[in-house]
Amino acid sequence: MPTKYSLFLFFVLSTVSAQTDATMLDRIHRTALTQGKCYQWLDTLSNRIGARLSGSESAAKGVMYTKSQLDQLGLDNVYLQEVMVPKWERGEKEVAYLNLGNKRLELSICALGMSVATPIAGLEASVIEVQSLDELKVLGSEKVKGKIIFFNRPMDPEQIETFRAYGGCVDQRSSGAREAGKLGAVGVLVRSMNLRLDDLPHTGMTNYGDTPENLRIPAAAVSTSDAEALSKALKKFPKAQLYFRQTCSYKGEVLSYNVIGEITGSEFPNQIMVVGGHLDSWDLGDGSHDDGAGCVQSMEVLHLFKTIGYKPKHTLRAVLFMNEENGVKGGLQYEAEAQRKGENHVFALESDAGGFAPRGFSFEIDDANFSQVSLWKPLFEPYLIHLFRKGHSGVDIGPLKSPKIVKAGLQPDSQRYFDHHHAANDTFDAVNKRELELGAAAMASLVYLFDQYGIR
Amino acid sequence: MPTKYSLFLFFVLSTVSAQTDATMLDRIHRTALTQGKCYQWLDTLSNRIGARLSGSESAAKGVMYTKSQLDQLGLDNVYLQEVMVPKWERGEKEVAYLNLGNKRLELSICALGMSVATPIAGLEASVIEVQSLDELKVLGSEKVKGKIIFFNRPMDPEQIETFRAYGGCVDQRSSGAREAGKLGAVGVLVRSMNLRLDDLPHTGMTNYGDTPENLRIPAAAVSTSDAEALSKALKKFPKAQLYFRQTCSYKGEVLSYNVIGEITGSEFPNQIMVVGGHLDSWDLGDGSHDDGAGCVQSMEVLHLFKTIGYKPKHTLRAVLFMNEENGVKGGLQYEAEAQRKGENHVFALESDAGGFAPRGFSFEIDDANFSQVSLWKPLFEPYLIHLFRKGHSGVDIGPLKSPKIVKAGLQPDSQRYFDHHHAANDTFDAVNKRELELGAAAMASLVYLFDQYGIR
Repeated sequence: MPTKYSLFLFFVLSTVSAQTDATMLDRIHRTALTQGKCYQWLDTLSNRIGARLSGSESAAKGVMYTKSQLDQLGLDNVYLQEVMVPKWERGEKEVAYLNLGNKRLELSICALGMSVATPIAGLEASVIEVQSLDELKVLGSEKVKGKIIFFNRPMDPEQIETFRAYGGCVDQRSSGAREAGKLGAVGVLVRSMNLRLDDLPHTGMTNYGDTPENLRIPAAAVSTSDAEALSKALKKFPKAQLYFRQTCSYKGEVLSYNVIGEITGSEFPNQIMVVGGHLDSWDLGDGSHDDGAGCVQSMEVLHLFKTIGYKPKHTLRAVLFMNEENGVKGGLQYEAEAQRKGENHVFALESDAGGFAPRGFSFEIDDANFSQVSLWKPLFEPYLIHLFRKGHSGVDIGPLKSPKIVKAGLQPDSQRYFDHHHAANDTFDAVNKRELELGAAAMASLVYLFDQYGIR
Repeated sequence: MPTKYSLFLFFVLSTVSAQTDATMLDRIHRTALTQGKCYQWLDTLSNRIGARLSGSESAAKGVMYTKSQLDQLGLDNVYLQEVMVPKWERGEKEVAYLNLGNKRLELSICALGMSVATPIAGLEASVIEVQSLDELKVLGSEKVKGKIIFFNRPMDPEQIETFRAYGGCVDQRSSGAREAGKLGAVGVLVRSMNLRLDDLPHTGMTNYGDTPENLRIPAAAVSTSDAEALSKALKKFPKAQLYFRQTCSYKGEVLSYNVIGEITGSEFPNQIMVVGGHLDSWDLGDGSHDDGAGCVQSMEVLHLFKTIGYKPKHTLRAVLFMNEENGVKGGLQYEAEAQRKGENHVFALESDAGGFAPRGFSFEIDDANFSQVSLWKPLFEPYLIHLFRKGHSGVDIGPLKSPKIVKAGLQPDSQRYFDHHHAANDTFDAVNKRELELGAAAMASLVYLFDQYGIR
């Protein structure tokens, strides 16, 4: 609830500035929809460069391309920030089937990110299906030993916001191999994090924690349709052997970069505002929604301000973080450098939930600043943006720790995100130009307001 | 603004019913997302039956299929309502090019709905590009005579809601041929009503008004990309001749049907609530968004109530109207029958803006009822539905004229609608299951609240 004082202040201020603010948001939106560059940038990033797995050649091309585009915007400073990132490669196309004696149930799988390979000839074992890590623990090592564990808890379709369904499910993917390995399992298959029934496996990071390398077991995702088929087949043939083979491998850390473009603040050059997304992606699609969209939208915020001729009072940076997907090394390095330089970050906004129509923002924020933000809500209503709430901001800006920082995440419509997330269909054709541009305009609008009114 | 009295009433009522209402909306949404049938119905309607142009064989199949599905829901009454509809056929694939002497600029066109054919050998004439009907009138008959008029005003990309951009543009398509014909033009080409640049022509009704048949001139839509190319070529070669050929024809009126499924009201059987969409579509895609979605969502409202066991107090009808696209004969016939039978309609809700994520409702409503509706808004917030406003409801329910009726239109997110509208890519794969189901749930929720609290 806004306090009476803040409401009073708003009405006083509004006589001089609410109209100006509304006019500026209008200009930002019109400019994004008619002179925006983000869609064309994403076209190149997705269709010419493609998937940008950390440490890959195409990730390096993505760095050079986005830097070259920022160089053309007439910013005050464009630079690369060195960061060491893990390099993991998928290797050959994965193979899996359930052996039913006279026939095979072929399964569409992909290795989970950072997984170890199977033995070169593949791995065959009987399967135990579980719905959760708890169910696995109840089984215990005697039952689990020598088996392939099949985690098959679906995303909850009753959740209105799909990220909640993801949050309620993803422990199977992130921790399944680690926990099953502890109990002696030889491999893990995880139902893809996808609300839709289709044939595409969805990858994503699996985390072995401190499991010694020689005790790590291979983990793969199986498409939702094949997860259903496998579950059904196992009910009929509980002792059937599952075969799978993957040749993925970890190549160690390699040098990569965060890409940074900056407009120096006219009044508060030492107070820094960040807009960002992550430049790396998984390797199966071209990383258009996750998170090419967030990168080009962040670049667009700077482009919009340059086009309109708005000079921010605070220093404004677009940061394209490397390695969100399998390490967050870019985000950690950015914060380490900020600490080393004694930089003061006052605001950070991340877009990493897809290039869909914007619905609002989720804020990591104290009550005083949230009261201020809430007073801006009516300014966003012409753009059908209504969601202003406290919650998670973004993974890459997560490490930022300045004392008075407000962090926020763009919240696009979430219904279609997990149809594409980490899968071969996260591609440019699934992005709508206007939805992408409206997201960038929403981001620029919020940055403008924080720039005008500051952090409390 | 709600009056103090209505706010007071709301708080009194809320002690007994707000919790019940919230619980009911929750059940409706959970049921739609887990037991909904609309997506599967749409799959059949789109992929097995396909485009349902009024008077076509597949429109007749659409009637029989949807009736058969309503028959299985255990309703109190399922019936067909006869309606005479115009039958128009596209004929052969249209051809168009700009003759540039040594080469041709091929143009992707389609006849506008209800257009007359060109002469069988096609039509060739020089072209005048205009941006508006006003510009055409200024030219006058001397300059227009014998020419093909090319209407090339684009949809306004600065509009946040795409229906506004459509509304600001569609006069070229609906009235261009009539007005150009009056001035002696021999044909009309209209830029497709599409915000995106692509190669698909978008059809839609053209209206000759009372122009005698022998004075009607052929009209076609050209894809947005080709409209740009044509405009550019005409600047260079202003006297170039444009050729186009189409063999479409009007076959007169034929018998078709509105499809109606009904649950008799337990308390007010003579007060009727309608949920509806239109069963006919244009012929280029399969009519999934326009308006297969609205039909299956309307059927879903009844299915959800049956599944949940909610018995409406008022009689509830799903009406699948025939012939919205080129005549609204189904909507007019439905109202004529209602008048003849002395039926009293209290509420009508149409879904005809695509099967995208629901954002809210647009109401044709008086102030007293709008105050009541506004009090329900918080009930919709868990479903990210925020838009409650006065405005257009729906074309098919437009003719309804009961004295105390409230009419409403579902407002889905509009950004992608005109990418598909009336074009070959209005197909099932462009519909997301959850977005479709959430729209149906939003409709059922609004119907439930009107059923509970009635019309003021």
